[in-house]
Amino acid sequence: MKSLSQSFSVAFQYQVHFTNRLFQVENPLFKDILPQDNLAKLFVVIDQGVAETHPQLLTDIKNYANAHSDSLSLFANPLVVPGGEEAKNNTQYLQQIVEAVDRYRIDRHSYIVGIGGGAVLDMVGLAAAVAHRGVRHIRIPTTVLSQNDSGVGVKNGVNYFGKKNFLGTFAPPYTVINDSAFLSTLDDRDWRAGIAEAIKVALIKDKPFWERLEQDVTALANRDQEAMQYLIHRCAEIHLQHIAGGDPFEMGSSRPLDFGHWAAHKLEQLSDYQLRHGEAVAIGIALDVTYSHLQGMLPEADLHRIIKLLLQLGFDIYTPELAEPELLRGLDEFQEHLGGQLTIMLLEEIGQGVEVHEMDKSLIQQAIDQLAEKQAAKVLG
Amino acid sequence: MKSLSQSFSVAFQYQVHFTNRLFQVENPLFKDILPQDNLAKLFVVIDQGVAETHPQLLTDIKNYANAHSDSLSLFANPLVVPGGEEAKNNTQYLQQIVEAVDRYRIDRHSYIVGIGGGAVLDMVGLAAAVAHRGVRHIRIPTTVLSQNDSGVGVKNGVNYFGKKNFLGTFAPPYTVINDSAFLSTLDDRDWRAGIAEAIKVALIKDKPFWERLEQDVTALANRDQEAMQYLIHRCAEIHLQHIAGGDPFEMGSSRPLDFGHWAAHKLEQLSDYQLRHGEAVAIGIALDVTYSHLQGMLPEADLHRIIKLLLQLGFDIYTPELAEPELLRGLDEFQEHLGGQLTIMLLEEIGQGVEVHEMDKSLIQQAIDQLAEKQAAKVLG
Repeated sequence: MKSLSQSFSVAFQYQVHFTNRLFQVENPLFKDILPQDNLAKLFVVIDQGVAETHPQLLTDIKNYANAHSDSLSLFANPLVVPGGEEAKNNTQYLQQIVEAVDRYRIDRHSYIVGIGGGAVLDMVGLAAAVAHRGVRHIRIPTTVLSQNDSGVGVKNGVNYFGKKNFLGTFAPPYTVINDSAFLSTLDDRDWRAGIAEAIKVALIKDKPFWERLEQDVTALANRDQEAMQYLIHRCAEIHLQHIAGGDPFEMGSSRPLDFGHWAAHKLEQLSDYQLRHGEAVAIGIALDVTYSHLQGMLPEADLHRIIKLLLQLGFDIYTPELAEPELLRGLDEFQEHLGGQLTIMLLEEIGQGVEVHEMDKSLIQQAIDQLAEKQAAKVLG
Repeated sequence: MKSLSQSFSVAFQYQVHFTNRLFQVENPLFKDILPQDNLAKLFVVIDQGVAETHPQLLTDIKNYANAHSDSLSLFANPLVVPGGEEAKNNTQYLQQIVEAVDRYRIDRHSYIVGIGGGAVLDMVGLAAAVAHRGVRHIRIPTTVLSQNDSGVGVKNGVNYFGKKNFLGTFAPPYTVINDSAFLSTLDDRDWRAGIAEAIKVALIKDKPFWERLEQDVTALANRDQEAMQYLIHRCAEIHLQHIAGGDPFEMGSSRPLDFGHWAAHKLEQLSDYQLRHGEAVAIGIALDVTYSHLQGMLPEADLHRIIKLLLQLGFDIYTPELAEPELLRGLDEFQEHLGGQLTIMLLEEIGQGVEVHEMDKSLIQQAIDQLAEKQAAKVLG
């Protein structure tokens, strides 16, 4: 009997908004982005770190809901969950959200709102994606990293079997809201860590953006909000363009935005998640650009500029975990997650990435040795 | 700062193949549908009921893999899991598959193959959808119901908190293969149950198909394979067209293919899943067409034809669970799962569904009373 052919496209659309002090009663943004034709019902999940640094946030949210009760209502008090990888390492938090969907009869046209760093948003996003096959999900990223990278994308996930993002889905959010007020309370490590993803996209895709980063390096290191807002907006924009123009649900073997990430994922794990994702990405970039140069691709002057920028921003370019033999398992795990042929992004020149399908282990070792030296020189000098 | 707009479409494509005795070494279909450029690695999950009825199946699969070792290989012996709702009620089976993905390093370009009834395929599909954010999934449905309905669609799920499909995703399969050999060993209840979904699509979408069902009623009741193959092919085709032409990932509030299903889902649960899904759907259809008539929509002659066909095929049109007050919670749960406004498909005439946004509880009760009488008349007479 004749085979049947199925073929269809699913269209996705969402906005990334920028604001300051989102839950001040007089800020109309949040209520305005909800459909106006009926009451929006929200369940809010907050990163514990954010709730502690912004002790008034829970009250602000309740006041906001009260002041705009014609547009929105809360199913319950916000749920506070631990921040960082703990949110993704322990499935009890995922379970808590799924239980809330059951308890409060949260339906697919309601909203699960995540407020926090990338890890919390990844976990909340997965809960929203699988409950009733997908409850609407609003992301309010609170770190540089999540505002310019993971928070504006289409992926979610939790860690399982000690493997990063072992469980997850592709599920575009209903909307994303970047509130710059959250950035002013970040500690220096988190402020800096998120810059790594901007460096990454600039290096592989956008030389003018790279030059702007070089020009703004002192302002960024000194926590200038204006420079940071430009960085986040441009980085998010490139990230969104990449997703829309490419393979949003990653059905192929290539994942160019994971430049520097094969080592980064492994370093995070080897450090027991003491390294922030962005810190690990900075080291992963340092490793892959040094490797690119050693392989004869990237000119020395470019390599020098990149290492210099990383160091000026205060990034480490070496960590003892780089020396662990287990590091190279990162290449296998990277391939294992994505499937198909190993595909690693390297750098030809600033602004121009190039994909390769194998890496030479002795060259990786040489690159690691060079980074150790450069890091030592910086610390000493 | 200016909002960023994201907008993209994701294209999905898959085939539904029809064959007989798929894993006979000389049947080229399975190996031919895999990409020819590299070895396809498979992990196979089999419904225990199928493995018991087809004791040679595991050996056949291994022999097939050995005979075509240039095209495909197995990660491990097939995993056998209980069939029916047990596969979806107990998350340990989902867990077993996810563990296999870890243990055998199954990557996104490998294949998780599900062989079984709709419940097993729903569960296997969810495991495949969330491991590594989506391993390729091949569905081999073995019942009438899964071959003509759920198995060719884009949904997966497991039950949780006693709620059907509480956890799940939308994830189109890599391919679907309908093997008619599995149908000949179905017991009469399963043979019949799957016909309910064909009756459903015919009633709401396709009068000529309905007339064909009337014409084939004796052949179908007598387990004629040819009549059944036509039914499955046509029902699958309408189902696929509906998905492609509508709202594949159900972002709206309407779900026309769930005609008869608000009551069916609840009846399955109230019967502790002693009622097969298709049996419950037949009763749900009987209820909603009787209601449609009582509401002044469906002509009496049409109602009579529908009830007659159901009874001729051997379906019950009444079950004691219809009398439980809890039944009406089915309307709320139906809305709760999908979200938005309650939207129920009723019938205007044979071949023509119509959506309504409320149902009158006393009319539902009248319809139930009529079904009880008609069922009793049949049993007595």
